[in-house]
Formats: sequence, C-alpha cells, structure tokens
Amino acid sequence: MKRIVECIPNFSEGRDRNKIDMLVSAIAGTDGVEILDVSSGEAANRTVVSFKGSPEAVTEAAFKGVKTASEVIDMRFQHGEHPRTGATDVLPLVPIEGISLEECALLARNLAERIYSELGIPCYCYEAAALKPERKRLEICRRGEYEALADKIADPERRPDFSPDTFTETAAKAGATVVGARNFLIAVNFNLDTSSAEIADEIAREVRESGTTVTEPDGTRRRIPGTLKGCKAIGWYIKEYGIAQVSMNITDINATPLHRAFLEVSRSAAGKGVKVTGTEIIGLVPRQCLLDAAVRLLGLDDLAPFDLTKKLI
Amino acid sequence: MKRIVECIPNFSEGRDRNKIDMLVSAIAGTDGVEILDVSSGEAANRTVVSFKGSPEAVTEAAFKGVKTASEVIDMRFQHGEHPRTGATDVLPLVPIEGISLEECALLARNLAERIYSELGIPCYCYEAAALKPERKRLEICRRGEYEALADKIADPERRPDFSPDTFTETAAKAGATVVGARNFLIAVNFNLDTSSAEIADEIAREVRESGTTVTEPDGTRRRIPGTLKGCKAIGWYIKEYGIAQVSMNITDINATPLHRAFLEVSRSAAGKGVKVTGTEIIGLVPRQCLLDAAVRLLGLDDLAPFDLTKKLI
Repeated sequence: MKRIVECIPNFSEGRDRNKIDMLVSAIAGTDGVEILDVSSGEAANRTVVSFKGSPEAVTEAAFKGVKTASEVIDMRFQHGEHPRTGATDVLPLVPIEGISLEECALLARNLAERIYSELGIPCYCYEAAALKPERKRLEICRRGEYEALADKIADPERRPDFSPDTFTETAAKAGATVVGARNFLIAVNFNLDTSSAEIADEIAREVRESGTTVTEPDGTRRRIPGTLKGCKAIGWYIKEYGIAQVSMNITDINATPLHRAFLEVSRSAAGKGVKVTGTEIIGLVPRQCLLDAAVRLLGLDDLAPFDLTKKLI
Repeated sequence: MKRIVECIPNFSEGRDRNKIDMLVSAIAGTDGVEILDVSSGEAANRTVVSFKGSPEAVTEAAFKGVKTASEVIDMRFQHGEHPRTGATDVLPLVPIEGISLEECALLARNLAERIYSELGIPCYCYEAAALKPERKRLEICRRGEYEALADKIADPERRPDFSPDTFTETAAKAGATVVGARNFLIAVNFNLDTSSAEIADEIAREVRESGTTVTEPDGTRRRIPGTLKGCKAIGWYIKEYGIAQVSMNITDINATPLHRAFLEVSRSAAGKGVKVTGTEIIGLVPRQCLLDAAVRLLGLDDLAPFDLTKKLI
C-alpha cells in the first residue's frame, strides 16, 4: 500500500522572492516529494508551502526546508503581521493515505528531535504529536512569539520539548519551530438557493460543534451544541455568486466525513425551507473522502459492507 | 498519467486444474500485470481470467495466455455447454484509466495480427476493434462455433480477419480467437423499498434503452424507448434480501455514468411511490466512476467545473 503524508511548513519570509525560491527549492529538490501549493503573503511576511510524498521523503524534505530557513531568515530582524516564533514557524504533518495520525505524530516527534540534534534549533511538539497535553494547542506553544523565546528557554516549565537550556546563537537566529501532526482539514462551502446570510448562519449554528448560545427568559445564557463533531461553520452571503453559503472547516474528517456534513447541512436547510444546491471545495480534498462519499450517497453499503480495496478497478 | 487496461480472456478449459493453473501462470508471470479474478465453470468448460496493467504489459500477458492455451487445449477434443470457436475463445481489452476505447481497439488489432503472424492462430476483430461493421457483434464472429471454422476459413466472406486460407493443423488445434475492445460494463442492482417485482420491472422498462412495447387500441404494437442510453435492465424479486431490485447492465458508462443511472432509477421509482434504498455492484466498478459520482451527488461542479486532476490529494 502507498503511504502518503502531506506537510505544510510555514516559513517566516513572505517578501524576498530569492529567499522564498531557496526555501521551495530545498523541498522540491528532494526525491519523491511533490509541491502542491506555495502561498506567500507580504504583509504577513510568511510563506506556506504544501507538499506530499512518502513518509521518508516528506520528513527529509521538511528537514532540508527547516535547515534552509535557518540559513536565510534571521529572526532578530524579522517582522510581519502574522504571529511567529521561528524561521520555520509551524510544521504540521498530515496523514493522507495508508498512514495513521498516530504514525504521523511519531514522525513529527522524530523530526523535531533531529532538527534539534543536528541543527540546534529548539522545537515544540503540538497537536497529535504533543508531549505535554497543554501543548496540543499551537497558540500555547507560540505564546509570546519569538520575543519571549529567550525567557521561555530559561524556564523549565515553558522550555521547548527539544531545547538547550540557554538562548544560544542558533536559537536567537532561527527561533523555535513548532512541529506536529494533525488531520487533514477540509475547507468547504455549501451553496444555498437563498441569498439570506441569516438563514445560512442559522444552519451553521445548528450543525457546527460549538453550536449556538441562547439567552433564557431569566437572562442566563445557555449553549446548545451542534450536530457535527469537529466542524466549525459560519453563514455568509457571497456577492459574486449572488447566494448565501454555509462556510465550514471540517477539522476532524474521521468524525465527520464530507458526505455526512453535506447530508446534515441539507437536512438542516430543508427544515428552513431552503436547499443545498452544491458544494464548493477550497483547496484540496482527499481522494478517499470522495470515494467514501460515493459509497454512502449511492448506498453501495446498503446490503453489505462495500470494500473499496477489492471492488475498484 | 497512468494508463491502465483490463483484459478478460475466456479460455475453453474449465475442468483440468493443472491446465487452468498453466493459463493463469502464463499471464500472472508477466511483469506489470495484476490478476483480478479467475472464474472456472465445469459444465461450461471455460475459464474467465480478469487482469489489468499497462497497455504493453497487458497485451504481452494476453499473448502469452493465448500461446499457452494453444499448447494445452486441443479444440478437436473440446466440448462444453458454452459456445466457443477457439482455445482462447474471446479476448476483450477494456480501457480503465488514461486510455481511450479507440486506443484499446488499436491495441486489439495489433494483438490479433501478432497472434496470427507469430502463432498462426486465425483471429477475428470484434466490437470497437471490428474491421467489418457486421463483425462488431461477437455472435456473428462465433457463428457455427469451432465446428464451422474449416468452412469459414475456406470462404473469403466468412474467413477471420487474420487467417490462412486453408484449415491448417494450428487452426484445427487452437481454433480461432475473437480479439476486441469494449467499454467496461457495470453490473449493478438498485435496491427498492418494495417486494414487488412488477414495480421493479416497470421502472426497468421506463429507463432501459430498449424501453417497452405497448399494444395500441387498434392492436398495433409500438415501442417506447427508455431514458438511459447504453443500459439493459429488468426487474426482479430477490428472496434472500426480501426486496425487489432493478437489475441493470450499463454497457456504455460514458453515455450513462453510474450516478446518472442511480438518479434516473430513483426518479422513476419516486413516480411509482417507491424509493431506491441502495446500490449493489456485482463484480468491479472503475474508481473513476465513484469519483465522478461523488462530484455530481455532492454538487462539486455546481458553481464551476471541478477538476479531479488538480483538486485531489
């Protein structure tokens, strides 16, 4: 079975074309990886590279990217709108095919260890790779940004997971990198046959995990949870399309497959007298999600389980 | 892009395990092909091997299978329930991925030419590979079966497309092979929430290409065509499931994608007060068909075309 991992390093350089090219080349020059996307922001002063490949190829390419970033970016002189704590700021690994989140977490920890031992760059491990529960959240690892790093390294409580105990020259230049593993996130908008952003927002509140907050007659506020685990959603009106959409991030595609979100938004919409006319995918969607959607929407699993590994040609 | 062809040789041997193993080994021993299925019938005295791979690997493996069949099967002593005209009776190539039916037709003609020039076995070309319009139909090529072959070879009108003009020792032993190219066929049953085979059959007649024949008040009979091109269908009741099904062969999956058949059968069923509760696939279904189904059923192409080659990871 093919094993495919995606990696999305966020580098703290979004202005100097020459340096950005060097970062991308360091990754693209590794055998067996494929660049999917490069997005640079001038104001953010940040470049997000998306690439994929085998676990071995991806971690090797990620290491080369981190090494190059530590050479071409000097955090002592880096400023931008986007929060950051290192030249390679955050480095998530995402399981795509034939590999579990847990395996990606192990890869991420090994990568963090290698970055520290070979390059001397302090690393936090976050999300599924976190070594301390509170460090699951990126915001916690990055708290205080680069400017707080010297203090954090000196404090055993806040020191990165792989780190010297003093603020070395290397740490001063490269900052710290937050390495982790997370599930693939699907960014999706469901098109409605209405232009009412209000209706779209009502649907979003009904389905998103965080739900909605209502005020009781006695003035107390109460949260009513939504129906879809691992989903964030809002409603909006898109002028260029002339329609309202339920805009959703599915952050846990195992808990809520794409087709389940589609069916649930459709159900909620029907209750409000509107229809889902289509689905807009922002960025990429795993092939597996579309195959799973076809199985469920055609009802291929109606009489017996449908084994995608044996029934496809 | 990967180019994948399926090949389904039908060999006129379904009883001798040793000979069947030799046929399968000849194919499986070719680099780059994957055996998908082997089905032998004793009464039919026939073995159907399904395998896939690149165009080059598949035609090489098919040639080896034909060669082996001509060595281990002697048509002068072969009998079985299934009609047949050769040791390798029929040999279709099917486009699966990255290749067109027309390209498979060319491969089939080249393969037929090679089988005749290197092995001396007469070959007909059928379906998309036919060199004469009437030979599109397998039944025409096989008419009279093996027993008529000597006369057919002697007759310029009925002689195989690649053939000697006399009934050689090789032709007598191996018979003739019918080589061709056809589209993948999907065998599918749509489950209904009724046990009425009558309703299922009404739906089948409404959607299948051949439609239904009605008798007018004046006694004349008139055919009303169905709504789905390239589809054959009947209705039946399946005792083990306790439900009726619309049982369909989609012989032209480009004219009628699987999801279109699903939607049309669902529409027709709704008009009769019943529902399609699921879809049963007999055998294999092309991965591409499920991806196309997901695009349509989720409405990923609602606002703009959805490019599966760029949006999947």
